[in-house]
Amino acid sequence: MPEYKTVKVNVGKGYDVLIGGGLLSDCGGLIAGAVGKCRAAVITDSNVEKLYLKTVLDSLKTADIDAVSFTFPAGEENKNISVLSDILEFMAENRLGRGDIVIALGGGVTGDMAGFAAAVYLRGVRYVQLPTTLLAAVDSSVGGKTAIDLTRGKNLAGAFKQPETVICDTDTLKTLSPYQMSNGMAEAIKTGVLFDRNLFCMFDGDVSGERLESVIEQCVRYKGHIVEIDEKERNERRLLNLGHTIGHAIEKCSEYKMGHGHAVAAGMAMICRAGEKLGVTEPGTAEAVCDTLRRFDLPTNTDYNTGDLVSAALSDKKRSGGTITFVVPERIGKCVLTTEPVEALGRYIELGKDK
Amino acid sequence: MPEYKTVKVNVGKGYDVLIGGGLLSDCGGLIAGAVGKCRAAVITDSNVEKLYLKTVLDSLKTADIDAVSFTFPAGEENKNISVLSDILEFMAENRLGRGDIVIALGGGVTGDMAGFAAAVYLRGVRYVQLPTTLLAAVDSSVGGKTAIDLTRGKNLAGAFKQPETVICDTDTLKTLSPYQMSNGMAEAIKTGVLFDRNLFCMFDGDVSGERLESVIEQCVRYKGHIVEIDEKERNERRLLNLGHTIGHAIEKCSEYKMGHGHAVAAGMAMICRAGEKLGVTEPGTAEAVCDTLRRFDLPTNTDYNTGDLVSAALSDKKRSGGTITFVVPERIGKCVLTTEPVEALGRYIELGKDK
Repeated sequence: MPEYKTVKVNVGKGYDVLIGGGLLSDCGGLIAGAVGKCRAAVITDSNVEKLYLKTVLDSLKTADIDAVSFTFPAGEENKNISVLSDILEFMAENRLGRGDIVIALGGGVTGDMAGFAAAVYLRGVRYVQLPTTLLAAVDSSVGGKTAIDLTRGKNLAGAFKQPETVICDTDTLKTLSPYQMSNGMAEAIKTGVLFDRNLFCMFDGDVSGERLESVIEQCVRYKGHIVEIDEKERNERRLLNLGHTIGHAIEKCSEYKMGHGHAVAAGMAMICRAGEKLGVTEPGTAEAVCDTLRRFDLPTNTDYNTGDLVSAALSDKKRSGGTITFVVPERIGKCVLTTEPVEALGRYIELGKDK
Repeated sequence: MPEYKTVKVNVGKGYDVLIGGGLLSDCGGLIAGAVGKCRAAVITDSNVEKLYLKTVLDSLKTADIDAVSFTFPAGEENKNISVLSDILEFMAENRLGRGDIVIALGGGVTGDMAGFAAAVYLRGVRYVQLPTTLLAAVDSSVGGKTAIDLTRGKNLAGAFKQPETVICDTDTLKTLSPYQMSNGMAEAIKTGVLFDRNLFCMFDGDVSGERLESVIEQCVRYKGHIVEIDEKERNERRLLNLGHTIGHAIEKCSEYKMGHGHAVAAGMAMICRAGEKLGVTEPGTAEAVCDTLRRFDLPTNTDYNTGDLVSAALSDKKRSGGTITFVVPERIGKCVLTTEPVEALGRYIELGKDK
């Protein structure tokens, strides 16, 4: 068994997030330890299937977990109700029962959709996350937000459903493209900006190997802590939306061609700039954030016009009644929630643009 | 405001079930009292739309609740993921927010599906049940089980999600066909067999008017109590499945042409017969139950062959591992759970048949 770090998330009955190289080869035993004797439906996409499905199925077999697998075509455009329906029918055809589990093998799309399938199949069965992207490792695999996209926007239908365990094999990150790595780095950098200047400073060096594992561990720990105190995103969890209001608008304007992390990076840079101009954010914060983002080839600005961004943002679920809540850094490591009338959004975007 | 009875269900933060004639005309005020200021999406089917949608929308308007409405084609075959998708897209198009509500206006299909939509839209918004069938009034509108059917079986995807309030206008029951009334009576009689000989005896007379209201009130009270102690159906709530294991199999063999209550009636009669032959059920119970069921033109037997019924039942989610749990009456008003190997199912069916 390879070495790994363990982060405990105390939501519901609690679960462990395991982080280390080579864990997929031993995932069967780790999963059996977490969930006991059961059958499993492994859900993955067409990219990840080729790389890791056999390893996972072999390990499950060794651990005496009878598994079936379902592969859907890779891509965010497939995180929809039609593929969800296929997954649910697949589970029913294979007679998965209430004591059986779903295993999400892949990135955020797979984790969100397979987790949602687990949340609703037979009104809820247990599930396990095996994240294979940095974005999923540091963000989406932990915290229990599951969802699919609707025509009108991302993640508009879903459930809060915590996994039984999360097993992050850091070796899988070695097969990611630089773009995918950056996409995850944006959320990791966000965690530093939100909670921890020392974590933020780790992105000055080369983030790989031991250092990457440490970054993932810290991100999971911070996210786990926030989810522990506010699982349903009524208060503190909203802090995790730093960069997301403007980021989602950018992502939408790009017709989701831009990665989520890239869009959040631009949104984060822009809210720092706006915050400085409004006197909320310590001067120099935007520059520091932008410098770090640029090290990972992440964008720090947008060319979309403000009207289009506002329209895109206001069809987003983050809007509630006539107000919108921004996450604004006071300084690196400390952010605050600010609720404003929705009309303020255009001004924030204008102030945030680097012209 | 017309008079009504109130049954309190203490699950989560608790909610009231209001039962009385003429309540739909005042539902706006009652809903506003339960949920406060919000917008609403009223979900109904093509039959109920013609009868009651205008009354409900008018009342909501009077209560200053801004409402949109969505109608789907009536019929159990439409309780599927495609219509669910249409409902979710409709809600997103109309920009329903986290503080807004879903109103389910109709029978069990509408309540189950609209409730499920509420459970997953934006990961959960509040909902209100306005049952317009006896089956929904005494059973499906209370207790928070929501679901859609999959190709492989009924209610295979769903969520536990309690409503904010249930408003049962007993005047709506006057427009039901005799078949629909019997369909609901079966679940009401089931409640008597499960918990209360006096309630069971109420079905000897003419069940309408005041007496019908009293029956509904008692059924809701018993169901509410069971849901209070076991919301997620791990223990006591499984008692409510009296007649359902065999009933579901019959329903499935009929390709859902038989009403749910009719199938449950046959299943209940059969489990009483089997119970008597096994020495669990007090002699005479089956006869008493069958006499009562026949008064409402409900079936007490099935012609489907045992092998087909077993196959149908074993693809049902009630199966868990290699065992199946039956609800068996000891006498009228007292039932017990019996867990058996799945192989016992055929024997129970054979013993239950009136040959």
